[in-house]
Amino acid sequence: MSDGLAGRLIAVEGIDGCGKTTQAGILAARLDALLTFEPGATALGSELRRLVLEAKTVPIDDRTEALLMVADRAQHVAEVVAPALADGRWVVTDRFTASTLAYQGYGRGIPLTELRALADWASGGLAADLTVLIDMPVEVAERRFPPEQADRIEGSARGFRDRVADGYRRLAADDPTGWVVIDGTGSVDDVAAAVWSAVGDVLDVAR
Amino acid sequence: MSDGLAGRLIAVEGIDGCGKTTQAGILAARLDALLTFEPGATALGSELRRLVLEAKTVPIDDRTEALLMVADRAQHVAEVVAPALADGRWVVTDRFTASTLAYQGYGRGIPLTELRALADWASGGLAADLTVLIDMPVEVAERRFPPEQADRIEGSARGFRDRVADGYRRLAADDPTGWVVIDGTGSVDDVAAAVWSAVGDVLDVAR
Repeated sequence: MSDGLAGRLIAVEGIDGCGKTTQAGILAARLDALLTFEPGATALGSELRRLVLEAKTVPIDDRTEALLMVADRAQHVAEVVAPALADGRWVVTDRFTASTLAYQGYGRGIPLTELRALADWASGGLAADLTVLIDMPVEVAERRFPPEQADRIEGSARGFRDRVADGYRRLAADDPTGWVVIDGTGSVDDVAAAVWSAVGDVLDVAR
Repeated sequence: MSDGLAGRLIAVEGIDGCGKTTQAGILAARLDALLTFEPGATALGSELRRLVLEAKTVPIDDRTEALLMVADRAQHVAEVVAPALADGRWVVTDRFTASTLAYQGYGRGIPLTELRALADWASGGLAADLTVLIDMPVEVAERRFPPEQADRIEGSARGFRDRVADGYRRLAADDPTGWVVIDGTGSVDDVAAAVWSAVGDVLDVAR
């Protein structure tokens, strides 16, 4: 948690095509929060994003991939997230630590305990106050966002996407006070209303 | 140590200007070893090297820097070092884990215990069988390799280079069986002879 910092950090998570980017934007606007994202929100991060997600022909070892993703997070926290929280701003981020656990953990098979230690170190111990999972069956997400258009990681085999989607559900189930799970299959407005209600129930949002 | 692997791994270390690249080349030739280096020996690594060492205008947090350096190492080990050792080849690398401890640890001030855990994870536990420190006073190295020509890390303030050089000496003193310290101020041939003698004393090199 962002103890000692005045603002609060909300992460919106899910597989590509679930609508989390749209929902993160709506939530940030309602909260008057800083809207940000991973990977790639900093100058360095945008280079890392290009390397990790777009360079499909360059071989990348699984550990290397995990290290680059948390390197992006370390820079994101240092340069964007922590300063905003210290200024008392709320921050909504499209992906945070849970993405590392879902993609490099459940997806790639790196042990979660190792990844948690790595991710905690990278973020200086900063964790989201609340993680909102926009949940959706993989086949529905794939109709919205075809795998052949996806980046290097999300464009991995279907089995990979299944493991990631299931991993998100397990992470949420294992930490019911830190996560809320929202059904992402409805209309944008319906999902946004469900997100807003859930965030209000968990965090002390003035509505 | 490279337990279970047939080859042996020798790292040559020191501050820029100490002559370690030249000495690594001579040693590798004498051992008929694979000569490699960090950062940047892989396709991905060359991009990371450009980012970390050449992008002087992009802000890089200390933790981010450490993560990018060990990301380069993870890829280097997976793609180059471990396959060569598994094939029974000896490997001489110009920089390895000790560079992380010297530059990001003693230089930047990140606790060594944290860096060791990070570096061990990145390399999959692979450590050098022997680390050869080419030792030299900072002011001598600076005459050979002026700081204004240096990369982003080595081009940091003089105090930084002093801490790195002293850090190398402490690392060597703390692990006398894993390190040898060679005075780098002599001629190339004299230094090479000292390196060869020291390597032969420690490792079972057929001479």
